[in-house]
Amino acid sequence: MDTGDITFHTRKWVRPEDLNANGTLFGGSLLRWIDEEAAIYAIVQLGNGFAVTKYMSEINFVSSARQGDLIEMGLTATHFGRTSLTMRAEVRNMFTRQSILTIEKIVFVNIGSDGSPAAHGYSEITYDRDRIPGEHLKIVPPEDC
Amino acid sequence: MDTGDITFHTRKWVRPEDLNANGTLFGGSLLRWIDEEAAIYAIVQLGNGFAVTKYMSEINFVSSARQGDLIEMGLTATHFGRTSLTMRAEVRNMFTRQSILTIEKIVFVNIGSDGSPAAHGYSEITYDRDRIPGEHLKIVPPEDC
Amino acid sequence: MDTGDITFHTRKWVRPEDLNANGTLFGGSLLRWIDEEAAIYAIVQLGNGFAVTKYMSEINFVSSARQGDLIEMGLTATHFGRTSLTMRAEVRNMFTRQSILTIEKIVFVNIGSDGSPAAHGYSEITYDRDRIPGEHLKIVPPEDC
Amino acid sequence: MDTGDITFHTRKWVRPEDLNANGTLFGGSLLRWIDEEAAIYAIVQLGNGFAVTKYMSEINFVSSARQGDLIEMGLTATHFGRTSLTMRAEVRNMFTRQSILTIEKIVFVNIGSDGSPAAHGYSEITYDRDRIPGEHLKIVPPEDC
Amino acid sequence: MDTGDITFHTRKWVRPEDLNANGTLFGGSLLRWIDEEAAIYAIVQLGNGFAVTKYMSEINFVSSARQGDLIEMGLTATHFGRTSLTMRAEVRNMFTRQSILTIEKIVFVNIGSDGSPAAHGYSEITYDRDRIPGEHLKIVPPEDC
Amino acid sequence: MDTGDITFHTRKWVRPEDLNANGTLFGGSLLRWIDEEAAIYAIVQLGNGFAVTKYMSEINFVSSARQGDLIEMGLTATHFGRTSLTMRAEVRNMFTRQSILTIEKIVFVNIGSDGSPAAHGYSEITYDRDRIPGEHLKIVPPEDC
Repeated sequence: MDTGDITFHTRKWVRPEDLNANGTLFGGSLLRWIDEEAAIYAIVQLGNGFAVTKYMSEINFVSSARQGDLIEMGLTATHFGRTSLTMRAEVRNMFTRQSILTIEKIVFVNIGSDGSPAAHGYSEITYDRDRIPGEHLKIVPPEDC
Repeated sequence: MDTGDITFHTRKWVRPEDLNANGTLFGGSLLRWIDEEAAIYAIVQLGNGFAVTKYMSEINFVSSARQGDLIEMGLTATHFGRTSLTMRAEVRNMFTRQSILTIEKIVFVNIGSDGSPAAHGYSEITYDRDRIPGEHLKIVPPEDC
Repeated sequence: MDTGDITFHTRKWVRPEDLNANGTLFGGSLLRWIDEEAAIYAIVQLGNGFAVTKYMSEINFVSSARQGDLIEMGLTATHFGRTSLTMRAEVRNMFTRQSILTIEKIVFVNIGSDGSPAAHGYSEITYDRDRIPGEHLKIVPPEDC
Repeated sequence: MDTGDITFHTRKWVRPEDLNANGTLFGGSLLRWIDEEAAIYAIVQLGNGFAVTKYMSEINFVSSARQGDLIEMGLTATHFGRTSLTMRAEVRNMFTRQSILTIEKIVFVNIGSDGSPAAHGYSEITYDRDRIPGEHLKIVPPEDC
Repeated sequence: MDTGDITFHTRKWVRPEDLNANGTLFGGSLLRWIDEEAAIYAIVQLGNGFAVTKYMSEINFVSSARQGDLIEMGLTATHFGRTSLTMRAEVRNMFTRQSILTIEKIVFVNIGSDGSPAAHGYSEITYDRDRIPGEHLKIVPPEDC
Repeated sequence: MDTGDITFHTRKWVRPEDLNANGTLFGGSLLRWIDEEAAIYAIVQLGNGFAVTKYMSEINFVSSARQGDLIEMGLTATHFGRTSLTMRAEVRNMFTRQSILTIEKIVFVNIGSDGSPAAHGYSEITYDRDRIPGEHLKIVPPEDC
């Protein structure tokens, strides 16, 4: 499978609410953005609105960002397991042209209607929107999960 | 200038905090996302971190979204004025395949170091990142603005 | 119907979390506040907790606000349709005494128990609280909507 | 001084992000709203953007609210000290027509340019906007305060 | 019952989103944090995930905090009623070593499955985790409450 | 150096705003909480309000949490470098008694007044508050960094 280069597809504008007390981008905001992006990417690839974060490999914060900077996040699928999807993520600062961090492996698991990992049946990236669910999530009340 | 079709480049996952009391996507969250996307797009096109929302044309909310749906937002520049940039925006629900809303004109104004509208010198869309500022914003304390 | 002057009834204090990266009031925060105010006003006028944003006419951002400024928002009903309510909104900066923006038409639609637009039966503004629902919303799980 | 009845002037719509884990209105959200309202009211009465919470008398939570309910908050000045303003606050649920809570005394202190309490020179409520500052806050960097 | 000294067990880092327009810690953020801490403490003591804020005694804001300061919050149970728990809370600024505020009484009520106050059966503080529920909340839809 | 067991010292209550679209704890919220806790711990250990996230080792999400659950986070210092501090983190679900995740290494770097890594001079954990700064941060405007 060709994992090639990451296409940067989501950009964020660093606003005051994203700063830590030092005035630089809060690491927690950044991790939150990445997890949301990965969830979206996994839903598009696995065709299932129920997918959860299972694993992240080590994260090196090599540079940061400041108020008003633009950052961009890119993800690409690198491996399809039976019930999982592995992605590679990179975040860059568009102003400084520097990498902010890279995560070699983010693994999401496909969840079936019984709340357990379920086979998803895919082995290749889609660049189309052919797998996206056509129905709203059936949200099961928590006591049944 | 060719304004062609909009490329959808930012996606959002509708989480509980984005719902209104009815359980559908809160219009205010949606408008907030669009304004942030337009600011990012304007900074990339005008090469200036100081750009502010000046105008939005009418907005028709033709469909909505529910918890767990993915939505996508697309923007394209449609006119470069001397100190302004006009964009067209569309938001779609990826699950229902329906348009959520379209905004024909979102105008941002380029702000100079004196806080007034300033000529930006561009007349064409860039599909590259050649105009993005290479320096952090110089944030002037409010009392001097 | 007399639409007269708008009574300003909600005020906001511009805090750091409401600023964009430029240090001025983030347009997205402002639009979020307006949409929430319009929802509240519509519920009071239509006597139904299920009412959704359907349309906003063009928005001209004629001035802005800075950290610590007070702004005020006013709404007034301008037209009662069979299933809809049209409002006019204005936002002003109390410190600078300037208008921030005016929206001539914000249309909300009254939603019935089947999720479709429903007749509301009103044709005049109430200045009283005689139409406000006396019961909590019956929130229908998403999969049934 | 006549403290008469409280005029209810701010309304909130209880959205999912305002709920505690029980599904009722989170007390912390409510206290946050009240503090913001009191700050706004104090600025309007004292004509100074620098005013801080000094004291709240006991709070009895006599009823609550649920998702989709409208609540209203009212404040009235009850005493002008030399450097302080005392207010009375009440919050009501517009749907159930019940009081949610009452706070007999919320005291704000007027802060001078040196960061200490400063005389404000007022002894009566204004029902007008004659005291509202005409300039943005001069925000002093923290290290000088 | 020995109420002894409060053990400080939760710390917060004051970030830009927690500031009021003056640049000091927003009282509303602080009250929100305290209410959340008290809810957690009550759940641990009463062994029931359904517990709601019933009462807070007067609050004196004797000092504040600035961006980057660490604050610590401490709670201790002072009285077990039949259906209630009374706690004492203190918040301190770790940087300035000053007390920020003290609340002598915060009362939470234990809620039974019918939504009314219910006896909890405890009369002493636990320093262990023997009462913590072993099951997720059974969240009852709002229309049935 | 004895790294022993982790003492759990911060607890969170999972509220609706912390859920992902699936109704389970949003991974991004969790990572945000951990990063904030690690920053606080590093400031207490290094005696410097300027400390930034540099590295996180791999993260295994072995279980999750639901609305209303309590979770607890624990950190302990495992290594003092010349300019860095390494910590180990664990997050547990207090209701299910299960580990949610463990992070073997979270590295923070101590930042000097010139914005570069600076020696901190410590080699042992403090269990006291003897290193905590006694002054507010001197926040340098972004253009000088």
